[in-house]
Amino acid sequence: MTLFSAMRFDERGLHLIDQRYLPIHSNWHCYQNLEDVAKAIEDMVVRGAPAIGCAAAFAIALEARRHTHLNWYAYKHDFYIGLNRLAATRPTAVNLFHAIEVMKSVAQDFLESDPVSKIVGKLEQAATSLFANDLAICRKIGEYGLKLSNSSNRLRVLTHCNTGSLATAGYGTALGVIRSIHEANKLQMVYVDETRPWLQGSRLTAYELAQDKIPFKLIADSAAAMLMANHQIDCIVVGADRIAANGDTANKIGTYSLAVIANYHQIPFYIAAPAWSFDPSILSGSEIKIEERSPAELTDIRGERIAPADTQVFNPSFDVTPANLISGIITEFGILEKPFAETISLMIATHKKALLF
Amino acid sequence: MTLFSAMRFDERGLHLIDQRYLPIHSNWHCYQNLEDVAKAIEDMVVRGAPAIGCAAAFAIALEARRHTHLNWYAYKHDFYIGLNRLAATRPTAVNLFHAIEVMKSVAQDFLESDPVSKIVGKLEQAATSLFANDLAICRKIGEYGLKLSNSSNRLRVLTHCNTGSLATAGYGTALGVIRSIHEANKLQMVYVDETRPWLQGSRLTAYELAQDKIPFKLIADSAAAMLMANHQIDCIVVGADRIAANGDTANKIGTYSLAVIANYHQIPFYIAAPAWSFDPSILSGSEIKIEERSPAELTDIRGERIAPADTQVFNPSFDVTPANLISGIITEFGILEKPFAETISLMIATHKKALLF
Repeated sequence: MTLFSAMRFDERGLHLIDQRYLPIHSNWHCYQNLEDVAKAIEDMVVRGAPAIGCAAAFAIALEARRHTHLNWYAYKHDFYIGLNRLAATRPTAVNLFHAIEVMKSVAQDFLESDPVSKIVGKLEQAATSLFANDLAICRKIGEYGLKLSNSSNRLRVLTHCNTGSLATAGYGTALGVIRSIHEANKLQMVYVDETRPWLQGSRLTAYELAQDKIPFKLIADSAAAMLMANHQIDCIVVGADRIAANGDTANKIGTYSLAVIANYHQIPFYIAAPAWSFDPSILSGSEIKIEERSPAELTDIRGERIAPADTQVFNPSFDVTPANLISGIITEFGILEKPFAETISLMIATHKKALLF
Repeated sequence: MTLFSAMRFDERGLHLIDQRYLPIHSNWHCYQNLEDVAKAIEDMVVRGAPAIGCAAAFAIALEARRHTHLNWYAYKHDFYIGLNRLAATRPTAVNLFHAIEVMKSVAQDFLESDPVSKIVGKLEQAATSLFANDLAICRKIGEYGLKLSNSSNRLRVLTHCNTGSLATAGYGTALGVIRSIHEANKLQMVYVDETRPWLQGSRLTAYELAQDKIPFKLIADSAAAMLMANHQIDCIVVGADRIAANGDTANKIGTYSLAVIANYHQIPFYIAAPAWSFDPSILSGSEIKIEERSPAELTDIRGERIAPADTQVFNPSFDVTPANLISGIITEFGILEKPFAETISLMIATHKKALLF
């Protein structure tokens, strides 16, 4: 099984594969400063909540490299401006904000007289370990996710968007669970929602599954209900961009739709997400800010107009699935069950230090 | 309000607007024989259950024009081969089969010695009156649909696919209801599902609404659930390709999905369809044949590959919404309510002669 990643960090800079043109074109770009990475996040060169978090951490390290002629006292102000710039890129996924907090906490130990040349190493180390940690977390999520396949039959799993190697440091969250079930020889079929408007499913998830020779079928998002009615789906596993203290989960637009339909057909509906996707400062999903993206995502295809001129568009990038529609949340610390307010709070209290909450 | 149509029949032939390239290109093609119209139906140059029925009726008349050197005895065999050819184009919508039955019933009165030149007129007349009748039916459906807007507030209506002038002889079924509500000054907003994979919503429905200056917003199919959760939808109105004796309704893929989600949010869900969309020979939706279309509708966009090579696809063009999820069926004879088995049977018995059932 190939272990692919959306990014690579080395002495030359942060290398990102341009996810806008995958799988047809595999273009890697190399970034040397924070502003360019911020733009890459906004433009979705890199996307997926954990991957965005990792890219932001690397961007902070990168930017420090450009200021080694200064000491921390002289650089500090620009350092925090950089953090704010990154925080303004995409509002919904919380991992970005956690990554920024991690880097900020590293900076707390810096002395004003420290030369930035010395600090750079610490920032690089923090970003690199955030990245390595995310990969280890995905493996753990995959292990716990194996519990979904405790029947003797092979599973037919439906997923939405891309939550794989491209959306994380590697392996994936929901797609990590699917990989792990496949490795255990317990997978029959993955049904992949194409995931309009950005087509993360048909472009990215299909690409990862094809690479790993995992059997899958691509469907239109609106065909999922028919498969569920026809008893062709055993469970649904998706990722998360932000999970509130009560378990309400913001994720790619269409997730809520699947959860309602799964509920109607009594099909288990799982979220797979690292603990850093939780935001205990937010009590319920109604407080999560939902990003709206460009109308062109619906009115144009590959730069060509398809809808009439002046078409008004409502294009939310995420929706919120209320906790009551979620069967369980698969994390690196185990599968959280209901009542989520309690199990989430317990998980965070237990792992507070590691999570920097 | 412009009254547009997808087809025009005259002495030169059957003119169809090519719906595959609307609204960017308005190309009209002129057809002179049945085989070319059959291909146009298969390739979705013309689509929409009632429009397909009308086009098939015109194709039968067209084909007779090419055989005026024969008499009915000599032509009869080829005539029935032509009907079978048309019946093989698209399996799900029943209007096609009813149109063929109407033309067949006209032919029953022909004498073997009748010259085809004499018969042509009768076939043309039958096709033309089928077309005119469909337009009148749509107007009636629109009138009855006005009942949806009996509150003092203006309605926010969600629709799926295209059920307008392009899908019928004119005015439309579900879109006819929306037009009629708009004409009565009772419409606030139409939310239009883009309707993957063929984009009937963003291309055709948006086009018709823009032409008529009816306020609308385009959404991804998977965003409908979020609008419903946010109390932004008052009712849903969609069309039908075939309605079974018990009210189960086959319609564009994604309809069932909307019905389940509407049910969860207690939002009224209406079908708008002419009586010739009913198929009393079929007891329930499970007997309706669902057409699967080309994988390329999902793996390619405008002829360009987007998904990895060898991607397997499940691409059903329709799904079945069970009667229990339908609030009412708006027909030219009134709004049918539950129990549908009874109200449908009564409607058909009352109008048996006109309907040729």
